[in-house]
Amino acid sequence: MGTNENTLSIFALGGINEIGKNMYVVQYSDDIVVIDCGGKFPDESLLGIDLIIPDITYLEENQDKIRALVVTHGHEDHIGGIPYFLRKLNVPIYATRFTLGLVELKLTEHRLKRDTKLIAIDSDSKLEFGEIGVSFFKVSHSIPDCLGIVFQTPEGTVVHTGDFKFDLTPANNQYADIHKMAEIGRQGVLALISESTNAERKGLTPSERMVGGHMNEAFMKAQGKIFISTFASNVNRVQQVVDAAMLTNRKLALVGRSMVNVVSVAMERGYIHIPEGMLIEAGEVDQLSPEKVAILCTGSQGEPMAALSRLSSGNYRDVSIYPGDTVILAASPIPGNERDVSKIIDNLYQLGANVIYGSGSTTGMHVSGHGYQEDLKLMLTLMKPTYFIPIHGEYRMLHHHRLLAESVGVEEGNTFIIKNGDVVDIEHSIARQTRSIPSGDTYVDGMGVGDVGDIVLRDRKQLSEDGMLVVVITINKTDRKIISGPDTITRGFVFVKDSEDLLKEVNRLVKKTVTDLQDENIRQWSIIKQNIKKSVGQYLYAQTKRKPMILPIIIEI
Amino acid sequence: MGTNENTLSIFALGGINEIGKNMYVVQYSDDIVVIDCGGKFPDESLLGIDLIIPDITYLEENQDKIRALVVTHGHEDHIGGIPYFLRKLNVPIYATRFTLGLVELKLTEHRLKRDTKLIAIDSDSKLEFGEIGVSFFKVSHSIPDCLGIVFQTPEGTVVHTGDFKFDLTPANNQYADIHKMAEIGRQGVLALISESTNAERKGLTPSERMVGGHMNEAFMKAQGKIFISTFASNVNRVQQVVDAAMLTNRKLALVGRSMVNVVSVAMERGYIHIPEGMLIEAGEVDQLSPEKVAILCTGSQGEPMAALSRLSSGNYRDVSIYPGDTVILAASPIPGNERDVSKIIDNLYQLGANVIYGSGSTTGMHVSGHGYQEDLKLMLTLMKPTYFIPIHGEYRMLHHHRLLAESVGVEEGNTFIIKNGDVVDIEHSIARQTRSIPSGDTYVDGMGVGDVGDIVLRDRKQLSEDGMLVVVITINKTDRKIISGPDTITRGFVFVKDSEDLLKEVNRLVKKTVTDLQDENIRQWSIIKQNIKKSVGQYLYAQTKRKPMILPIIIEI
Repeated sequence: MGTNENTLSIFALGGINEIGKNMYVVQYSDDIVVIDCGGKFPDESLLGIDLIIPDITYLEENQDKIRALVVTHGHEDHIGGIPYFLRKLNVPIYATRFTLGLVELKLTEHRLKRDTKLIAIDSDSKLEFGEIGVSFFKVSHSIPDCLGIVFQTPEGTVVHTGDFKFDLTPANNQYADIHKMAEIGRQGVLALISESTNAERKGLTPSERMVGGHMNEAFMKAQGKIFISTFASNVNRVQQVVDAAMLTNRKLALVGRSMVNVVSVAMERGYIHIPEGMLIEAGEVDQLSPEKVAILCTGSQGEPMAALSRLSSGNYRDVSIYPGDTVILAASPIPGNERDVSKIIDNLYQLGANVIYGSGSTTGMHVSGHGYQEDLKLMLTLMKPTYFIPIHGEYRMLHHHRLLAESVGVEEGNTFIIKNGDVVDIEHSIARQTRSIPSGDTYVDGMGVGDVGDIVLRDRKQLSEDGMLVVVITINKTDRKIISGPDTITRGFVFVKDSEDLLKEVNRLVKKTVTDLQDENIRQWSIIKQNIKKSVGQYLYAQTKRKPMILPIIIEI
Repeated sequence: MGTNENTLSIFALGGINEIGKNMYVVQYSDDIVVIDCGGKFPDESLLGIDLIIPDITYLEENQDKIRALVVTHGHEDHIGGIPYFLRKLNVPIYATRFTLGLVELKLTEHRLKRDTKLIAIDSDSKLEFGEIGVSFFKVSHSIPDCLGIVFQTPEGTVVHTGDFKFDLTPANNQYADIHKMAEIGRQGVLALISESTNAERKGLTPSERMVGGHMNEAFMKAQGKIFISTFASNVNRVQQVVDAAMLTNRKLALVGRSMVNVVSVAMERGYIHIPEGMLIEAGEVDQLSPEKVAILCTGSQGEPMAALSRLSSGNYRDVSIYPGDTVILAASPIPGNERDVSKIIDNLYQLGANVIYGSGSTTGMHVSGHGYQEDLKLMLTLMKPTYFIPIHGEYRMLHHHRLLAESVGVEEGNTFIIKNGDVVDIEHSIARQTRSIPSGDTYVDGMGVGDVGDIVLRDRKQLSEDGMLVVVITINKTDRKIISGPDTITRGFVFVKDSEDLLKEVNRLVKKTVTDLQDENIRQWSIIKQNIKKSVGQYLYAQTKRKPMILPIIIEI
């Protein structure tokens, strides 16, 4: 199943049919370049799981061939898996200075620094990895310093867009290299790998600068303190908040660990400009009059432990929200977070705050960093690829992205909608998808990586729904008489005080099951346990319509 | 804390600061009329809970005063609690014929019929309950036969709107009684109780008939089979699907239990008109050519066991979706259901279907049944109430509804934003809110009603996140020696085969803890267990960063 010599292979280890854990690979003969290494947050069905990262079995098996991990930008779904990747593989990491700053924060958090080479690049860098030449172009997105990647291979040019939108008036003058993209396209692109997040949305993404205008207006109108919650990594938006504060003569406090950390990385590295003396500590807020302060905080997704949630419930030590203060939610809730965000808005209104919220277009306080249909078509038009591989999206997004590609001239049949692990091989300019490599989800739970699998999750699910019942019985080894028990312990099943009769009957059933089997001279523990599970399970279901996990413990003495 | 004689009291037992479990009460002296008895679906934090219903302690304590349960309409959040209510209280139920049909379905499902009086009313009915006179007016909503309620009391008139929108071109000619509303307002309304679901949304709700137009267009364009998923209870929308099928000469199959049940109630009672011979069985679909069939199915909210989900994964026995078929999602996902619905759309595209989805305004296949801001203002304007109590909504909705009321003339200070249980007392035309009665969530779990409380849920949460570890040790009663164990069993914690060393160390720690305490002559089980929990817990957290539930079991023999 190995790669042939002189074959160009493109595949994803994550990011397809999902939003998150982006990881793509370009391989030519024995040279592998990895693009991004993201994490993904589990949905509520993955009980107790902290993070999902790509299964990198293929990379571990081919580690001698891996030349580099190139990171397009610093969002979690592109860098969140790096600490786990580095524990298995020692590969040099290439990224822009801002992205590297965030990677370093992450490695420090994980107490991982070791001997990994972190190499700063910019859009003018040119790298060579065996027969693969790598160069870059700048793209606009909702975090600074984002790259698209160009791979020059003997088979032809492959372009990976990174995450992007077209923004002709970007905040902070983070202009994209449109001319460079046009030149790449003019010279010929064999395959385009392009992100699909907003392929369902018609039109062109609004410019980030629109947010700045609305931010200024809101600052000019507000009477009391102003709280603004947004993604810390959206440094260009943070800059616009700084500008609005400057315009209205307000000091600015940063609240929330990631806000403080990311802004300080951005300041150190010159990606944000905050006037001398503007920043104050959270503890100083109350010493100033309300119309002289703004507070930039984390928690725009309703995360229960983040600053905004704690502020909204009055549980933040240094700062409080009073009637007449304004709270701006400068972010849209990611699907799945709506309820938590709504709860916060309710609490803010109950505190008497004036709340500016709602989807981006309603309030003008948020725009997406991912291109809509017209943005995607413009990229496809600039690149004029022969083959097209839509990535970074769920199936319906990839599907719509294919339709967009065909509408601007990609030939029918030349779009590959792949799954994670599916390999597109290109040889003699002919692309085909016939083989797959191992791929999947690796679960991170506490310190364990990959040690929680389906059995553990199935048990957690049963435990979560109906709890459990442990029944212990001690039997004399020689005469088979019951010495002690049965004793029953339940957790998460019923409130014990209300259920004495129920549990009495369980004990009676267990005793009967054990003695009946003894009468039949059946001595195998496994059979006795099976029978206890069955009789107790049936009884409990009939009485309660619940199916707790039943754990019979038999002790022979 | 009882009510005074000659006091008019208004309160909610559910429906405030939430969407769901609506239940409101109007009491005058010793006469109580209950409005609606809804259920609410739990969010994912309430592990294992099937349904939430209102705490009706107050009603149980005052059952001799309850004259009636009046039901405004047949949605789950207004009737879902009735089977549980009837197990505690025998109260006659008044509702329109269609609503009663749905209540009867529910009682049959619960095998509950007994001796409850179900009394059919219409908008012309006039009832008297002690000193309270009750009459009605028709409102438009997303289910047929909805009522607003007028209470004539010695203190004045109280109006409860039910759930409503204004729809001047309703499907199925379900016209609202606008003239009657105006007349009620003209005669004077002391207090208006009005629903707030869409109080955040600007403008006027679009008409249901808009959906019909788009449905016809889609039917005319479609080539293969057409699947339409919507709420079964939205009978007027179902009628529009029937009309579109008639227009394009398609037969119609009903798929999904609630679709079949509700449509048959609607047919029997004359709320829907389906031409002779149009309905076919699901099993007959494949015998007709694809352009001659439409299939109306349940599951528009992504419910994993409902028809649409099973169709999308190819697991529906009688009918399959083929490339070229069209699937119309004629409903918006309720917050919390987005991910499940998206998964279905992905699957449908993978089957090759043409999918029409997206929020209502994008596709024109869904409109809300709840009035937007202009609808709410029109109701307030028609009723001209002295006092206003916004209900049926989360806090931010009630907040916006208050602002709307003030914008059309309700005096500041005359709006009462209450919580469930807060009582608005009106005496001598003066309203005040100073007292509360018991209220809250009652959890239904399997057959248990109210037997699962916070402790059980806390245990389920811990079990769901990190599983559990049972450690059993048998000790000789007299010499305190360990006879057997420690033995360790885990579930939902780690995959045991990978963790032998970990569990060996746990056993060593338990043994050491027990013998150390014996050396100190400590014999209390509770202390020994506490110490085991502590030492094992600390060790496991240090090793795994997980906190499984630890259950030490000590058996003395």
